[in-house]
Amino acid sequence: MTPGPGVRRTPLPKGFLASGVNCGVRRYRPDIGMLISELPAITAGVFTLSEFKAAPILYSQKLLPAENIRAILTNSGQANAATGIAGIEKNLMMAAAAAKSLNCDTNQVLIASTGKIGEQLDIDKILPSMSDLVTRANDCAESFATAILTTDLVPKAVTALVTLSDGQVRVTGICKGSGMIHPNMGTMLGYILTDAKLTKKHANELIKKTADVSFNMISVDGDTSTNDCCFLMANGATGVELKTEKDMQKFEAVVEDIAIFLAKSIAADGEGASKLIEVKIKGASDLQLARKAARGVTLSPLIKTAMHGEDPNWGRIVARLGAEQVPAEQLNRMSLRLQGVVLFEKGQPIVFSKDEVKALLKQTVVVIEINLNSGRHTAMAWGCDLSSKYVEINTEYS
Amino acid sequence: MTPGPGVRRTPLPKGFLASGVNCGVRRYRPDIGMLISELPAITAGVFTLSEFKAAPILYSQKLLPAENIRAILTNSGQANAATGIAGIEKNLMMAAAAAKSLNCDTNQVLIASTGKIGEQLDIDKILPSMSDLVTRANDCAESFATAILTTDLVPKAVTALVTLSDGQVRVTGICKGSGMIHPNMGTMLGYILTDAKLTKKHANELIKKTADVSFNMISVDGDTSTNDCCFLMANGATGVELKTEKDMQKFEAVVEDIAIFLAKSIAADGEGASKLIEVKIKGASDLQLARKAARGVTLSPLIKTAMHGEDPNWGRIVARLGAEQVPAEQLNRMSLRLQGVVLFEKGQPIVFSKDEVKALLKQTVVVIEINLNSGRHTAMAWGCDLSSKYVEINTEYS
Repeated sequence: MTPGPGVRRTPLPKGFLASGVNCGVRRYRPDIGMLISELPAITAGVFTLSEFKAAPILYSQKLLPAENIRAILTNSGQANAATGIAGIEKNLMMAAAAAKSLNCDTNQVLIASTGKIGEQLDIDKILPSMSDLVTRANDCAESFATAILTTDLVPKAVTALVTLSDGQVRVTGICKGSGMIHPNMGTMLGYILTDAKLTKKHANELIKKTADVSFNMISVDGDTSTNDCCFLMANGATGVELKTEKDMQKFEAVVEDIAIFLAKSIAADGEGASKLIEVKIKGASDLQLARKAARGVTLSPLIKTAMHGEDPNWGRIVARLGAEQVPAEQLNRMSLRLQGVVLFEKGQPIVFSKDEVKALLKQTVVVIEINLNSGRHTAMAWGCDLSSKYVEINTEYS
Repeated sequence: MTPGPGVRRTPLPKGFLASGVNCGVRRYRPDIGMLISELPAITAGVFTLSEFKAAPILYSQKLLPAENIRAILTNSGQANAATGIAGIEKNLMMAAAAAKSLNCDTNQVLIASTGKIGEQLDIDKILPSMSDLVTRANDCAESFATAILTTDLVPKAVTALVTLSDGQVRVTGICKGSGMIHPNMGTMLGYILTDAKLTKKHANELIKKTADVSFNMISVDGDTSTNDCCFLMANGATGVELKTEKDMQKFEAVVEDIAIFLAKSIAADGEGASKLIEVKIKGASDLQLARKAARGVTLSPLIKTAMHGEDPNWGRIVARLGAEQVPAEQLNRMSLRLQGVVLFEKGQPIVFSKDEVKALLKQTVVVIEINLNSGRHTAMAWGCDLSSKYVEINTEYS
């Protein structure tokens, strides 16, 4: 996979263009972006499970899965959530304006928004930017990836070239994250583009399956957004199909890798975060338990602050597993490793060098491995540490 | 109710004594306390639902409800959780030593512990303090309430005198809280003492019912402890029984008031907290939903940081209600008040003076009122703001 988050040039798949400009909602930073497919693209999506969905979510969710999408327009700074009927109308105006500039139907344009909740869209600033977005569109991801950021520090985009039996295709992933990150079946804002030929049914299944092991396994703060969504667009511009079972596996594995890479980059760039925390659960008696336990550990503010302080306070990890209802008999068979060092085994604390583990915790990736020794199920989840910087950012947000 | 948290003299009910001393586990602060009933007391308890229960929880839970309890010994600084078989043995040694000093059976002594998880009890320091605890026992709550504190800033104790048809009785509540506070059916450390005569069955029902509307509706950080527990002791020293339906209602209302008072004092004294946040849900279609929604709002780090910053960022409240699965049609009928000012009504944001609400948020109690206008169920929950101080305390804890 090349390049990665923050790296300058991430090529898009064939037949895709992207752009990002400043329309004036934010003072200086780019705040509106457009992803364009030259051909009508098979497109599927997953959306937040929040009962309080933003206007763009209600709109885009109704259109997908579809066979003829031409663009996704995304604005940052204003989430268009909790904005009532005016918000629904302004969302439609955005889609119509984008469609006009692309010479297609309104329902061929999807909308995603991110930013402050409860504020009406500055539509007078947004609408005039359409022609600029179309004119400046180019074949790499960066300007779009930058325009969709909120409190993120780095743009997140990645591309992979996949050789299938029928020829070569490209898969590109772009996303934003940072705060209000605890995706629930739907996700934060994510975009996966490919020039392979997919069926609508496959695209729809693939995006759900992928989100479940990537974006749905990260948490920055346990707050689920009103605006989470993730799209998969396949425009078939290469004409390359997934012909064999091996093609299918290879392609799906790349999509999953890209999604996990992006998910980790969101957790690592969480508001105020200085460390990525990776939690691996092994040997669980069932999958749902493994997933719940792994996510629970990433959610605990006590574990997050301990890791921030580079403090091997493993008691907090054990406590959280108990609170997540991992059965006591499994916890009594459990081994717990922090940065590779065993701290707890078979219900008993292990004597270890605190200084050694403290030194290992200075690394920017913290790995917590839990083997429940009770079955064959595994799960991975990603979170970040909790710093005073998080409190600062969110005390001063609006 | 007199006095209150932090006030000097809280009298105990008739026939109860309490003490707290420093045994040397902590350098200066009192770190071990004893509650003594001169008569064998009807005693019931509720305990953490964590699957990973500390040794004292496993021990005390097995003994209750009981008719003959003489004392509750409580140490702070070391939680005796995740300490394996040695922890179970040391817990028993504590109970046996206390029983010996009181001249009763070991199974007439309950144990509760609080403090760091995963560290073996300093039993050589604890055991010699028993005679001191018995000698120094007196008829008010403060020395015990102080000895059980961890990161709490103020001791928490309160007493009420209740006039029943049969005579006067007293109810006293004592607790500790601060961090790892998100009680789940069981609670943090709480003690409710009375000199009324209760049956074992009534005591057992009453403590469960009371915990559900008080301690189980607070959260400091969403982490549930391995050591949560709450006891109700009734020694009948006054000889006064609950004879009429009115006595029953009056007595239960006082117990509930005391528990809610203590619960709020825990939330207000949460680690690093500067504000108590009170969430009232009205008009919900069912009780469980109301409880879940109220607790969800107290859990959100984004709402907690906004309140810390005295910022009326109500969008975060609406987002959390959606994430807690309050149905969209109820959210669209909802009104939302912050410090009494309407900010959102019938699915539409309301224009309000930000400066006015910011000024109201300077108060130390923040009230968030949500009327879902969809039924007759209500719930209240309490939490606190999230400050950099919380991060500081928990980064440097061990």
